[in-house]
Amino acid sequence: MRKVAVVGIGMTKFGELWDYNLRDIFTMAAIEAMDDTGCTTKDIEAFYVGSMSAGRFVGQEHIGALLADYTGLKHVPATRVEGACASGGIALREAYFAIKAGEYDVVMVGGIEKMSDLPTTEEVTTTLGAAADQEWETFMGLTFPGAYALIAKAHMNRYGTTREQLASVAVKNHKNGKNNPKAQFRREITVEQVLASSVVADPLTLLDCSPVSDGGAVAIVASEDVARKFTDTPVWITGSGQAGDTIALHDRKDLTTLPAAKFASERAYSAANIGPKDVGFAEVHDCFTIAEIVATEDLGFFPAGEGGKAAEDGLTEVDGQIPVNPSGGLKSKGHPVGATGVAQVVSVVEQLRGEAEKRQVNAPNIGLTHNIGGSGATCVVHIFSR
Amino acid sequence: MRKVAVVGIGMTKFGELWDYNLRDIFTMAAIEAMDDTGCTTKDIEAFYVGSMSAGRFVGQEHIGALLADYTGLKHVPATRVEGACASGGIALREAYFAIKAGEYDVVMVGGIEKMSDLPTTEEVTTTLGAAADQEWETFMGLTFPGAYALIAKAHMNRYGTTREQLASVAVKNHKNGKNNPKAQFRREITVEQVLASSVVADPLTLLDCSPVSDGGAVAIVASEDVARKFTDTPVWITGSGQAGDTIALHDRKDLTTLPAAKFASERAYSAANIGPKDVGFAEVHDCFTIAEIVATEDLGFFPAGEGGKAAEDGLTEVDGQIPVNPSGGLKSKGHPVGATGVAQVVSVVEQLRGEAEKRQVNAPNIGLTHNIGGSGATCVVHIFSR
Repeated sequence: MRKVAVVGIGMTKFGELWDYNLRDIFTMAAIEAMDDTGCTTKDIEAFYVGSMSAGRFVGQEHIGALLADYTGLKHVPATRVEGACASGGIALREAYFAIKAGEYDVVMVGGIEKMSDLPTTEEVTTTLGAAADQEWETFMGLTFPGAYALIAKAHMNRYGTTREQLASVAVKNHKNGKNNPKAQFRREITVEQVLASSVVADPLTLLDCSPVSDGGAVAIVASEDVARKFTDTPVWITGSGQAGDTIALHDRKDLTTLPAAKFASERAYSAANIGPKDVGFAEVHDCFTIAEIVATEDLGFFPAGEGGKAAEDGLTEVDGQIPVNPSGGLKSKGHPVGATGVAQVVSVVEQLRGEAEKRQVNAPNIGLTHNIGGSGATCVVHIFSR
Repeated sequence: MRKVAVVGIGMTKFGELWDYNLRDIFTMAAIEAMDDTGCTTKDIEAFYVGSMSAGRFVGQEHIGALLADYTGLKHVPATRVEGACASGGIALREAYFAIKAGEYDVVMVGGIEKMSDLPTTEEVTTTLGAAADQEWETFMGLTFPGAYALIAKAHMNRYGTTREQLASVAVKNHKNGKNNPKAQFRREITVEQVLASSVVADPLTLLDCSPVSDGGAVAIVASEDVARKFTDTPVWITGSGQAGDTIALHDRKDLTTLPAAKFASERAYSAANIGPKDVGFAEVHDCFTIAEIVATEDLGFFPAGEGGKAAEDGLTEVDGQIPVNPSGGLKSKGHPVGATGVAQVVSVVEQLRGEAEKRQVNAPNIGLTHNIGGSGATCVVHIFSR
């Protein structure tokens, strides 16, 4: 089965992009990616885009066709995929399959969300709640901060994880995001500031939470047959894993772990023929600080219960044992939900090319992306190497 | 590259299913498909589901995870795909690629929509309008009946297609649907009744339009390595084609044809190494009567401009030259938008197995599905053989 590489990347700044609409945002990212690849629209044979809820955020479904049209991709197959906040990771995976299956050689993979156009934050919260069990969780009042607060409480209760350890994740990610020109928040924060910010869902405060963001990200992927036509530094996709779980938290036996992440990473490690110790750095789904701690345990970087201490001890810093979210992560970079999975790919490619500037990890060979949908009902993990 | 077959099918009755919610509807179809296949949830390695707008129709995104959960598919990769009303056809295509790529052997493909829960028909019309260009068409007042009315007017103007020819499509599809126990409308209608029904968007009347429907459909697909473990009558997917077009009608040069359907069918014919004359029967996307006429031309069954006369002359009847929509089509069977593409597969498999009872086409060897998103911004064509 032939290999697949990322040959070009593009990404808008993440944030509240009031001056641009959904299609503007996407085309900016797509043009940057085509420039980076050195290709034109004529080279692109198909298009996959991840978006969680363009239908509710901006009243537009069928955005595969819409964005292909506005990007100038004439008559190509254009498909939207959705797995809540894991939509971007799934888009990469579907492109990867289609190229492996021999259907295409060059595919554009996008992720997009325009979240800030809804008139109230209540509507944003309700729309995001559509990623949980709408009838049994959202309708009953559970929000996503609430869901992850339950996970945090369970982790603190079982393992003694502390508020300060949670906060240290946000502090580290803001420190990294300060060096990312496309990050939504580019200022450092302190543990004290995290603890003193207003409570959103106990124990999580405002600075434990990723923000509401607009943004788009694009990766252009190609078969090994043509990859070197576009770049001297292809970044190979060596493993892809996806797994699911119950959509509702109340149907799980244990809230301290997300089994979908374990299964997805096992599949990806197996495909890439590596283990967690071989990973040089990772971009993980830190929608809330507790999520990064659980991720580093589920991915096998640290034993269960030790992720909080590892973060506090600096093991996940850019110069630590296993750098996590050198891009700033969802917390500081921003979290336009459907774009996040592809933005992670952009960050990994920058690192593996050695183009990550002040946030560059030292000589990485293998990078990993970990993209979660909802409260862990979907997880997609990809492994990349130079 | 290994072959892929449909090894089992299931489908709910289409209609206004007031007693069931989204998850009920899907699990009924999934259980029927697993019974038909002779498999259990343990055999299913992955799940793709097409839905256009569960987020707006019932407030639930992330339905890949939700429906896998409720169907008892534990921890499998579960992905929703969306291309407006072509979502179901895309779901089959993604499963086909994943199996060809060697990732899975057995995949469940679903299509679902629960449209009747919105409180007003205006909200249904607005939600469906999200498949068109929301900013330049829907917001300005163009509805889907309006879009297809423009196509009908152009076709009548250029080719002399008549109101009676349009009506004959509805009459034929109701005649076929009468024999389909799962169809929403099981009564015959006359050309006079179609002409006399209230105008929706001139020249289209109420009986030119497919209805608002709830329903689910499932196909279980398998690699050639395992297909015969489940069935003695695998139905092989011999060709798959998808293509796109501008999302807005005003960006097209010619409204009498949907180029995406031409490109998608050319790709599918080429993959299957056949031409239009080899097709024994077809399930096409007759969201409006004019759509079926245009489809039979775009697919190459009749020359451009002759689809209306062919329908009127009975060439597309069950015992005609090329039977079209022996299931009753979207018009009579119903059109739960995300489910339609998979329901077409269900109908083709019934025919190729010889299990279509009173609507059975005479000894078909090759069947075709044609699934349109929006007003032709997406088209997916599949070709099947015994």
